[in-house]
Amino acid sequence: MPLPSDTRTPLATKDTVTVVGAGSIGVSWAVVFAISGHTVRLHDIADERRELAVADVASRLRSLDQAELLPESIETVLARISIHATLQEAVEGSVYVQECVIEDLDVKRELFATLDAITPRDVVLASSSSTFVASRFADHLPGRERCLVVHPANPPYFLRIAEIVPAPFTSSRAVDVASSLLVSSDMIPILLGREVEGFVFNRLQGALLREAYCLVRDNVVTPVELDTLVREGLGLRWSLIGPFTTSELNTRGGLRHHARVLGPIYARLGLERGGENPWSAETTEQVAAAIESALPHDSWEENVRERDRGMMQLAAALRHFDNPFAGPLKRPPN
Amino acid sequence: MPLPSDTRTPLATKDTVTVVGAGSIGVSWAVVFAISGHTVRLHDIADERRELAVADVASRLRSLDQAELLPESIETVLARISIHATLQEAVEGSVYVQECVIEDLDVKRELFATLDAITPRDVVLASSSSTFVASRFADHLPGRERCLVVHPANPPYFLRIAEIVPAPFTSSRAVDVASSLLVSSDMIPILLGREVEGFVFNRLQGALLREAYCLVRDNVVTPVELDTLVREGLGLRWSLIGPFTTSELNTRGGLRHHARVLGPIYARLGLERGGENPWSAETTEQVAAAIESALPHDSWEENVRERDRGMMQLAAALRHFDNPFAGPLKRPPN
Repeated sequence: MPLPSDTRTPLATKDTVTVVGAGSIGVSWAVVFAISGHTVRLHDIADERRELAVADVASRLRSLDQAELLPESIETVLARISIHATLQEAVEGSVYVQECVIEDLDVKRELFATLDAITPRDVVLASSSSTFVASRFADHLPGRERCLVVHPANPPYFLRIAEIVPAPFTSSRAVDVASSLLVSSDMIPILLGREVEGFVFNRLQGALLREAYCLVRDNVVTPVELDTLVREGLGLRWSLIGPFTTSELNTRGGLRHHARVLGPIYARLGLERGGENPWSAETTEQVAAAIESALPHDSWEENVRERDRGMMQLAAALRHFDNPFAGPLKRPPN
Repeated sequence: MPLPSDTRTPLATKDTVTVVGAGSIGVSWAVVFAISGHTVRLHDIADERRELAVADVASRLRSLDQAELLPESIETVLARISIHATLQEAVEGSVYVQECVIEDLDVKRELFATLDAITPRDVVLASSSSTFVASRFADHLPGRERCLVVHPANPPYFLRIAEIVPAPFTSSRAVDVASSLLVSSDMIPILLGREVEGFVFNRLQGALLREAYCLVRDNVVTPVELDTLVREGLGLRWSLIGPFTTSELNTRGGLRHHARVLGPIYARLGLERGGENPWSAETTEQVAAAIESALPHDSWEENVRERDRGMMQLAAALRHFDNPFAGPLKRPPN
């Protein structure tokens, strides 16, 4: 009996899902779903995109495999992905469709109308849009209750969060299906309470970028030094603890104290940029209570020690990581 | 001949520096300087703080050593730090003073007056202040040209950037001395072009926090999910590439295209918060040119591939890192 070429145990087969559009985001979603054991039916209207798709998926899987990030063999994962020339064929037997076509409202409205017409009513229809909420492209559909946005970060096989943005007409079942699919794909669903332009990811990114452009414009800092400061400072810390947890652990007295002392300063700095949004006592209390209940320990001191241990483990893990983007301000790797 | 207890080669002795204030920031600076081979003279006016300082330093060094982040033995590093009861004694033979006392303008003004009086004129006097620029605490001093702010992130032995903020009266020699000392301490100096409240680090942090509080207030997202989104998404990406480099690599056409397409959207989202700061064509051009010249490759495609390789190496390095703050939305470590 010949030994198998790869001895890693294949994952159990999971759901069949459809990805529409084989550009960068579509291929990324196909990789995410297939790695986790889902069967993926990938469609693109463009012949050459379909022809390139297999090579694109294989190339990404090879890179993941080289970094020892693939739980199974490339062939096993690749075998879960099929390419289809028609939408009708691509949705066959599928429980979930992830749309990844161009950011054009008319194109999306038409595509969702077609999807709504050709799939059974219990199939969930999700858009990867970073720009349009489902209210804008699915409001006119008989099956609009199964339509929503599932917005990934780029690339989703490294940044493993995705924003779930239901429209007012989206059913809780559709949200549950999308959420379960993400969790079963080793992703973290971030469920938004309501539709808002830019969602959360790009709003936070945009807020930081607005300030960054002002600082460069005013000759406070050069673009490369600003990038360096974020990369080696804010970003590195935020990769361990988010901004609210950072505030919580910043000073004795926690986030409430932080908001009392620094809130007015940050509000003033915001006013300088024209914005008036002081942190209210009510919101501060809401944030503090939520963050505290999510911390690993009850005592503030113990949480701070945990943060320092975490930083240390992070530094140790990254000790031999030589960041190719550290550029002219690079520190030598340890 | 007995074997030495630790066979790691001691670093060459470097400068003698003084740290004033043995609270958390002072102790952190002492650790940063001593690890890199500098001789550190640490002073605090409080008896009990001086008594605790050695144990505090030793405890941090032990943690660093356990994580294999210490290039020499704990004893070798510890031997470079001496504790002094008087300021006069602490500044003896020192070329640089790092002030780390409480954030009180009157206290800092008085302390800098004393330091200016008791040290030779070529000693550089730096404040760790996150709040006050040197114009506010050193403007009245005969030796004000050697005064400036050197603001660390917390803790500085993991977040290895520090902002150098010269006053209009600060000499370029003082900036050079501070900058060289940081580089020789394995830190990255970020030189600000002018004094501005909040400097760059806290302005960027504040901009993101302002938006974060608005999103929670408006029930768009819960605090814990927002922290999760930043930790596993924005923060993780920003720990590899800063915000401008992220924009550059986001879409074909680079940062200029990104600013053209997304600039107006982010400006509108800013207006919603009351702020009117569109990204001008001039600033965009300045940022794009600077970022492009700092990228590792000439071709956009090659830089994007490098980003994806970097993400992969980062994911591989963090594969066994089990973040204690991942909380209820934790993914299992691979």
